[in-house]
Amino acid sequence: MNINERISSLRKLMAEKGIDAYIIPTYDAHQSEYVGDHWKSRIWISGFTGSAGTVVVTKDAAGLWTDGRYFIQAASQIANSEIKLFKMGIPGVPSYMDWLKDNLSEGETIGFDGKVFPQSDVKQMEEKVSYKNIKLVHEYDFIGELWEDRPALPMDKIFVHDVKYTGKTAKEKLDDVREKMNELNVDYFILGSLDDIAWVYNIRGKDVESNPVVTSYALISKDSAYLFVHGEKVPTEVKGYLNDNGIELKEYDDVRKTVEGIKENSRVFIDPSRINSWLYSGIPKSCVIVEGRNITTDLKAVKNNVEIENLKNSYIKDGVALVKFMYWLDENIGKTPISEMSVAEKLIEFRSQQKDFIEPSFGTIAGYKEHAAMMHYSATEQSDYQLKKEGMLLIDSGGQYLDGTTDITRTLVLGPISEEEKRDFTLTLKGHVNLIKARFLYGATGSNLDVLARFPLWQEGIDYKCGTGHGVGFFLNVHEGPHRISPAPNKVVLDEGMVITIEPGVYKEGKHGIRIENDVIVRKDIETDSGQFMKFETISYCPIDLDGIDVNMLDESERAWLNNYHEEVYNKLSPYLNENEKEWLKNETRNI
Amino acid sequence: MNINERISSLRKLMAEKGIDAYIIPTYDAHQSEYVGDHWKSRIWISGFTGSAGTVVVTKDAAGLWTDGRYFIQAASQIANSEIKLFKMGIPGVPSYMDWLKDNLSEGETIGFDGKVFPQSDVKQMEEKVSYKNIKLVHEYDFIGELWEDRPALPMDKIFVHDVKYTGKTAKEKLDDVREKMNELNVDYFILGSLDDIAWVYNIRGKDVESNPVVTSYALISKDSAYLFVHGEKVPTEVKGYLNDNGIELKEYDDVRKTVEGIKENSRVFIDPSRINSWLYSGIPKSCVIVEGRNITTDLKAVKNNVEIENLKNSYIKDGVALVKFMYWLDENIGKTPISEMSVAEKLIEFRSQQKDFIEPSFGTIAGYKEHAAMMHYSATEQSDYQLKKEGMLLIDSGGQYLDGTTDITRTLVLGPISEEEKRDFTLTLKGHVNLIKARFLYGATGSNLDVLARFPLWQEGIDYKCGTGHGVGFFLNVHEGPHRISPAPNKVVLDEGMVITIEPGVYKEGKHGIRIENDVIVRKDIETDSGQFMKFETISYCPIDLDGIDVNMLDESERAWLNNYHEEVYNKLSPYLNENEKEWLKNETRNI
Repeated sequence: MNINERISSLRKLMAEKGIDAYIIPTYDAHQSEYVGDHWKSRIWISGFTGSAGTVVVTKDAAGLWTDGRYFIQAASQIANSEIKLFKMGIPGVPSYMDWLKDNLSEGETIGFDGKVFPQSDVKQMEEKVSYKNIKLVHEYDFIGELWEDRPALPMDKIFVHDVKYTGKTAKEKLDDVREKMNELNVDYFILGSLDDIAWVYNIRGKDVESNPVVTSYALISKDSAYLFVHGEKVPTEVKGYLNDNGIELKEYDDVRKTVEGIKENSRVFIDPSRINSWLYSGIPKSCVIVEGRNITTDLKAVKNNVEIENLKNSYIKDGVALVKFMYWLDENIGKTPISEMSVAEKLIEFRSQQKDFIEPSFGTIAGYKEHAAMMHYSATEQSDYQLKKEGMLLIDSGGQYLDGTTDITRTLVLGPISEEEKRDFTLTLKGHVNLIKARFLYGATGSNLDVLARFPLWQEGIDYKCGTGHGVGFFLNVHEGPHRISPAPNKVVLDEGMVITIEPGVYKEGKHGIRIENDVIVRKDIETDSGQFMKFETISYCPIDLDGIDVNMLDESERAWLNNYHEEVYNKLSPYLNENEKEWLKNETRNI
Repeated sequence: MNINERISSLRKLMAEKGIDAYIIPTYDAHQSEYVGDHWKSRIWISGFTGSAGTVVVTKDAAGLWTDGRYFIQAASQIANSEIKLFKMGIPGVPSYMDWLKDNLSEGETIGFDGKVFPQSDVKQMEEKVSYKNIKLVHEYDFIGELWEDRPALPMDKIFVHDVKYTGKTAKEKLDDVREKMNELNVDYFILGSLDDIAWVYNIRGKDVESNPVVTSYALISKDSAYLFVHGEKVPTEVKGYLNDNGIELKEYDDVRKTVEGIKENSRVFIDPSRINSWLYSGIPKSCVIVEGRNITTDLKAVKNNVEIENLKNSYIKDGVALVKFMYWLDENIGKTPISEMSVAEKLIEFRSQQKDFIEPSFGTIAGYKEHAAMMHYSATEQSDYQLKKEGMLLIDSGGQYLDGTTDITRTLVLGPISEEEKRDFTLTLKGHVNLIKARFLYGATGSNLDVLARFPLWQEGIDYKCGTGHGVGFFLNVHEGPHRISPAPNKVVLDEGMVITIEPGVYKEGKHGIRIENDVIVRKDIETDSGQFMKFETISYCPIDLDGIDVNMLDESERAWLNNYHEEVYNKLSPYLNENEKEWLKNETRNI
C-alpha cells in the first residue's frame, strides 16, 4: 500500500465507526521521549520519519503538523501523497486542534487511540472543542488494525540493576514512595512512565535504544506493588528478586482490568502528563483523583551517595574514553580519511573499551564546520563531511554504563579558525564558567539561574534557542526531569544531589556551531545569616580546547576556573592513559 | 468597649446568625495594598495596628495571624485581650484556614464579609474546608454593625487627570480595552481594583493616602461604561468630562444590582484576585465567567510616549528636590539637631517646592545605622535616632506628581563607616549596576533577570529577603504590576515602555542596612540574528554616595557605568540648582 492507499483504508474504518477525524501522534503508550518501532504509527501512515509530528485525517483532507527542524524533510517525504504540510510556529498556521475546530461541524466526532495520548493532552483537547459540541472518542487504534507488518513489542529480557549501583533496594524505594503517598493521603499510585518504573523497581531492559527501560506499567498501593510486563521478558532470577522486594508480576495487558478493579472511593494519585488517557479512563468513577508530578520523579532526581560515587566513577571512565579518542583524532587527522560518521563510530569504540559500558546514551552528534550550527545534527551518507586540519568539530555524546549515564559536548579546534569563531568560542566558555562556578541561595530554580550562562553572549547580541541544561538519569534516560536550566518558568528548586548539564552555545547558520557541556552535581556550599548557599560540583572530566580561546577576553576568575579544572582533569584521567596520551593531555591542560 | 467586650458582642451576633467562626482580614472592598480608615475593621476588633494580619473569632477562641515583622508589636498590642497570637511562617504554626479546619466540626459555618475578600481567596478557602462539609457564608459585615464610630468612606472630590499627562483620553483607553474584550470574546468586564479604574477613566482622587485613587467600581461592555462612585464626590466639570468620554455615572452602592442585571448567558471577564467575592457572587449564574488578569493591568503597565516624557520630567524634579535636600543635610548635620523623623519631613518640604507635587508616593523610610536593617522601618517618637557625622542613613522615598510617580533609595554616608559597611555598600552597587546595564533578549521576565542583581552578593554569602524591583504607576500606585523583578516564577515579559525599580540591598540585623534604588524604563536595544534585545533606560537622577564605595572592588565596566551615570545626573539637575548646590553636586558626581 502506498501512503494514499493507507489513508483510504483508514477512512473506510473511520466511516464504519462514525469517526469524522482521526489523529495519529508520535507518542508511545508511556509518553516516552524516544519510542520503539512498534509505536511508529505516524511514520506508517505518512512516510514522514522525523522525530516529531502529528497526522490528522478527515473525510476529505489529510495534514501533517511538524516543526521548523523538519519542514524540508517532511515536504519531500509527503510529496507523493495527498497529505498537506502544516508548518508549526509559522504565523497564521493553526495548530491541528484549532484546524479541527474550524473544519469540523457541530456534533462531529474526533477519534484517536487513547493509549498514545497523555491524559493532560486529551483534557486540553476536550476544552478546545467543547464549545462546538465536538465529541472525542479514544477507543480506536485504527493504525494497529491496518498495519499488517507492524513490529511486535520488544521481548528482550529484563535485568536487575544491582543495589551496589542503586544504593537502595526496590523495597526501600517503595517505602519512600509510600511515605509520600501517606503525606498526600492517597491509596493508589498508577505509573505509566518507563523511567519511573525502572527506577522504583531497580529493573532495566533494552526496549528503547539508548534508554535502558522496560515497557511496563506499575500500580502501587499501601500494601501491594504490581509490575505489568510481558511474562516472557522476565527471567527466573528476576522473578525471585521481584518477589523478595514485595513486587507482584502481572501481564502487561492486564493493567487496565486491574485499574478498573481499584476499590471504590479510593484516592488515586496520577501524573496526568505521564499516564495515557486510555488507562486513566479505567479508574473507577467513584475514586478521587489526586494529580501531581509523579512521586518517583522527585525521588529519582536526587541521587543518593552510592549513586553519586558510582556516577563519578563512570564519568572518569567516560573522560578516559574521550581523551583517548581525542588523542587518536589528533594523531590521525590528515593521515587517514576521517568523516563525521566515522568519528562517531570511533568514539563508541573507545567507550566500549570501558568497564560496564552498555551503549551510547543518545545518538552522537558530530557536526563539522557549519553542520554544527544545527543543534541536533545527525550525519547521513549524503551530508557526511570529511574532516580536515581546519575549522571546528562539535561532538555531543554520552554513554550508558551500569554505574551511570554521561552526556558531554566538546568543540574541537582542528586547525585554523576565524577571529569570529574564536570570539564565539570564548563567549560560550565565559557563559559556561559564569554559571558553573556560581554560588547561589538554596531555593533558586533553573529558570532563575539560566541567565548566568546566557549573559556574556547577550551582551554581544547572541542567544541560543534552547535551554541551558537538563537533568540526567542514573543508568537511565539522558533527559530526566523535573529540574532543568531554562528561561521557561519552572518551580523546581535545585537540590543537593541533583545531576544537571550546563551547555551554552553559539549557533550561526551556514557558519559554525559551538557548545561546551559539562555535567554537575548540585551541592551544599556555605551557610550564612542569609541561609544555605549551593554550588555545582563538576563531574565531567575532559579538556576544553585551548586553541578556541582568546585569553584576553577572560577575566582573572575565569582563567583561574579553567586552569583549576584542567589540573583536575589531568589528575583524574592520567592514571588510565598511556605515556603518549598522558603527554598529549598534559599539553592540552596546560595553564593559561 | 475594650477588646474583649468587642469580641463578646461579635459572638452575640454570630450566635444569632448561626455562625461558628468569623474572619476579619485587612482588606478593603477593592483589594488595595493600602486601605482607608473606614476599612480598618481588624484594628477595631483586635487593637493590633500593623499593616497585615487576620483575626478569627470562634465561640470559645480568638486568634490573630500576622507575620515576622509584627510579632513583637502584635504581642504587646493584644496582651490585655483574650486574643492569641499565631506567628505566621514559624514551623508548626497553622494558617488560619488550617486552624479553622482542625477546630471546627463537620457541618459548622464560617462567616465573613464577602466585600473584603477577593474571590480567589474565597475559592481557596472553599477548597480547604470542602472535605469537612464546613459552610462559608459571606453576607455578614458584623464589624460594620458593631463599630459605632466607624469612619465614613472619604467624600473628597475626584478630578480629571488631563490628557496632556496621560497621552490618551478615557475614550481611547476604552477603545483599547474593548479591542481586548473582543479578542477574548467577552461581553462584560467588571473592575473592582482602584488603580485600574483610575487609569482607564483618567480620574484621580484623595481616598487613600499616597495612592491617588477613587473608591469605585466599573463595568464595561461593548457599548457602555459605568463608573460606580458616591455622587457627591463628582464635581460638575468631571460629570461633563465623563459624559464626553461615554462614561455613565452610577451610585457606588448600585454596583451589585447592576451586575445582577447583566444579560443572561453573557460572557463576563473578571480578575478573581482583584474583585471581591460579594460582587462576584452577583454575576448571573447563566453567565460564562472568563478569568484572567485585568485587561487594564497589562495596558496600564506599558507607558505611552506622552507619559514617558512627563515621567522623565517628574524624575528630574524629584532629583532636584533630593539633591537640594542632600546638600542641606550635608551643610547642617552636626550644626542643628536632625533626626530620622525630621529628615523625612525636610525631604517632603523640598519635594513640595517642585511643580505639580501632590504628596509623597509612600511613607518615607529614613533609617539610621542599624534601623536601616529593617527594610520597612518607620521611625516613631520612641525609636527616632538623632543623626551624627558617622555611619549611614538609608532614605527610601518618592513623590506623587501630576506628571509621574517616583520611588528612589539612596544610602548616605554621614561620616566614618566600617570596612564591612563599605564592602556591603560596594557589593550592593555591583548588583545594581550588573542588572541596570544588562542587555537582555526580548522575552525575558523579571524572574529570569533577578539573579543578575543578587549575583555579586551571593558570591559573598549575602542575600536580601525581598524582590529586586516592582513596577511603578503613572501618578498612581507606587507598586504596580503585573511585572516585577523577583526570583518567584512570573510569566510577564519585560516589554518596551514598562517602568520598574532596581533595588538590591544588604540588611544586617543590629548592624546596618544598605539599598541603592533607581527606576528604569524598559527599552528596545539592538536587533540581531538572535532576535530583539532589550535594555533599561535609567530615569532616576541622584548621586550615589562615593564615600560608600571601595573602588578596588569595581571592574572597569562598573566604574564606567557609574562615571557615566554621575555625569548625566550633573547635566540633568545642575540647571535647577544654585551655585553652592551645583558645586556640591559637581564634587559628588566626580569621576572615580
